[in-house]
Amino acid sequence: MSLQFHIEAQDDAARCGWVKLIRGEIQTPAFMPVGTSAAVKTVTVDEVRASGSQIILGNTFHLSLRPGIDIIGRHGGLHEFMRWSGPILTDSGGFQVWSLAKPRDITEQGVAFRSPFNGAAVFMGPEESMAIQNALGSDIAMVFDECTRYPAAREEAQLSMLRSLRWAKRCRDVHANEAQALFGIAQGGFYEDLRRESLDALVEMEFDGYALGGLSVGEPTADMYQILGEIVPYMPTGKPRYLMGVGKPEDLLAGVAAGIDLFDCVLPTRNARNGWLYTDGGIVKLKNAVHRSDTNPVEAQCPCPTCRQYSRSYLRHLYTTGEMLGPRLGTIHNLHFFQRLMASVRKEIKSKGFTAFHLDFLAQFQSGNPPVA
Amino acid sequence: MSLQFHIEAQDDAARCGWVKLIRGEIQTPAFMPVGTSAAVKTVTVDEVRASGSQIILGNTFHLSLRPGIDIIGRHGGLHEFMRWSGPILTDSGGFQVWSLAKPRDITEQGVAFRSPFNGAAVFMGPEESMAIQNALGSDIAMVFDECTRYPAAREEAQLSMLRSLRWAKRCRDVHANEAQALFGIAQGGFYEDLRRESLDALVEMEFDGYALGGLSVGEPTADMYQILGEIVPYMPTGKPRYLMGVGKPEDLLAGVAAGIDLFDCVLPTRNARNGWLYTDGGIVKLKNAVHRSDTNPVEAQCPCPTCRQYSRSYLRHLYTTGEMLGPRLGTIHNLHFFQRLMASVRKEIKSKGFTAFHLDFLAQFQSGNPPVA
Repeated sequence: MSLQFHIEAQDDAARCGWVKLIRGEIQTPAFMPVGTSAAVKTVTVDEVRASGSQIILGNTFHLSLRPGIDIIGRHGGLHEFMRWSGPILTDSGGFQVWSLAKPRDITEQGVAFRSPFNGAAVFMGPEESMAIQNALGSDIAMVFDECTRYPAAREEAQLSMLRSLRWAKRCRDVHANEAQALFGIAQGGFYEDLRRESLDALVEMEFDGYALGGLSVGEPTADMYQILGEIVPYMPTGKPRYLMGVGKPEDLLAGVAAGIDLFDCVLPTRNARNGWLYTDGGIVKLKNAVHRSDTNPVEAQCPCPTCRQYSRSYLRHLYTTGEMLGPRLGTIHNLHFFQRLMASVRKEIKSKGFTAFHLDFLAQFQSGNPPVA
Repeated sequence: MSLQFHIEAQDDAARCGWVKLIRGEIQTPAFMPVGTSAAVKTVTVDEVRASGSQIILGNTFHLSLRPGIDIIGRHGGLHEFMRWSGPILTDSGGFQVWSLAKPRDITEQGVAFRSPFNGAAVFMGPEESMAIQNALGSDIAMVFDECTRYPAAREEAQLSMLRSLRWAKRCRDVHANEAQALFGIAQGGFYEDLRRESLDALVEMEFDGYALGGLSVGEPTADMYQILGEIVPYMPTGKPRYLMGVGKPEDLLAGVAAGIDLFDCVLPTRNARNGWLYTDGGIVKLKNAVHRSDTNPVEAQCPCPTCRQYSRSYLRHLYTTGEMLGPRLGTIHNLHFFQRLMASVRKEIKSKGFTAFHLDFLAQFQSGNPPVA
């Protein structure tokens, strides 16, 4: 049994529990930082762990091209290569190869594309993706799917969803790593019945968890929230539910409210590199001149190492002079912010206070008045 | 008394002891990492401290322009701004303004130049430099001097040296911060008698320590070593001796052998950002393909966090994919290497084994065969 899942508490549709994997336990709802190329950008695994992160995401596409699975294999897998001893979820690479390939290079067999790093011809289909994820040795693998274009007409969304189902079946059939959980990914664009059809067929195949793909792809937020409301209630209650590529703090809370357990997104790390730091009062843009001589921390109550030590003024100085230490200290803060938010979410679900917390958070976070302190 | 200095052991001309400042003690001979813009590039002050560094260098020129002393003053000084609680030495800015100014803009009063950051007209002379260093609150300030061009004819070197002496006197006269030590800087190019004249005049003025400036400016190594041999014996034995801007491991050892106590250089941090890592067997260039699948650490016996955790292959991957974590892990290793070298130097001086250590180190380091492991 590569994955166990248990729900400890529920507050309306919101659930709180844990996912147990061979390499450790994850408190859910959980946010997974993205470590695309075997590193959560700018920070060490110790700093990731100290932020409260229990699982990270690795990118099959990037890792298979650089450094390549031969090199990661020599280290005994991705965990040993990057020295992260906790659980790792790998995406399938489907999204990246799909976005690189010309339409005619996407066939029933898989996707042919050229490496953006050295121009080499590469082919990736369900079997290749599973083989790579097996070599990476991730704790949770994702099926290789086709990302449906947004917006997509009904017929296009349907054809794409059906192909993703056939690919999911091929992934299921070749997946033989008993130490690795495998998640299915429901597609179907923004058509409720297609989403339901996709989900039901995946449940029929039996996966260790179920994800929603093809959301947060540029659609209005209301459309994503509507799909969540329509589909999540039909996702198996006894398996982890994963909303891929989400997201903003407000979207995490919307997902939790709908009954989602797992999230991943580059936002906290990418925004940190740009000097955008999250606070309960909204995003603080550190490069702005208003912070020039502000000796206060980014967030007065934040217990992260960045806020405990450094002023906004100092951080702004690092960003504006191009010191790498700036993105790094910013990343530490943002990871702590996201993990602190998820810890609050779990606590509030347990005490049946999630709905009030959700509303309070939105009112403060979207007030547009981040504390200038 | 802002500075105390004590020699504990001597091995030929090499000395081992300590410098005591209000913010802490420095074991000498000591290497000072450079934190140009209020950060040792890529690393935190905790990582600098963990490398064994007891004092860092800050750049008066850079800090006075960005973020400016008004902002650093609001934090209570450079220590509080960057959160380094140990001693800081600030250079005078002389070298940087001299290299930016046109010849006609260098007068007896000081140097007029344009900020390379925003084009603003700025003037810095002895009084301005001392005022800035006072506002920065460094533990050791340096006199504002004129860097003599290399190569310089005797007359040019003499005129420049004499001006630096007059500036040193003006610095001495306006320096009033009793918590801050002040070092004089001997100039004189590569003319022994001019160097002696400069040094003798500075000693007459009485400083807390004496530096050799204008070395490591592009001259053949033998010329620098010759000046060291000619001048260091005449530097006061009871005051710290500082060789500015040096340097390579082999030059640190040559300086120690001549009787130098303090060094600073950007080499360990700059080279780390380029993937050049120091080992006892020489420099390992991590971007080279030979390290592609090498699962060994950079240096097998190195106790630094980088070598304890990561393979050459992983580090090479970080460098070649542009992950900021690479320069950071490399910087940590190089700082540890330099501080470990200085710790060995101090130990060997105490046990009268420095000369043998010096020769052994050179034989191994310059063998051109860094262990591929």
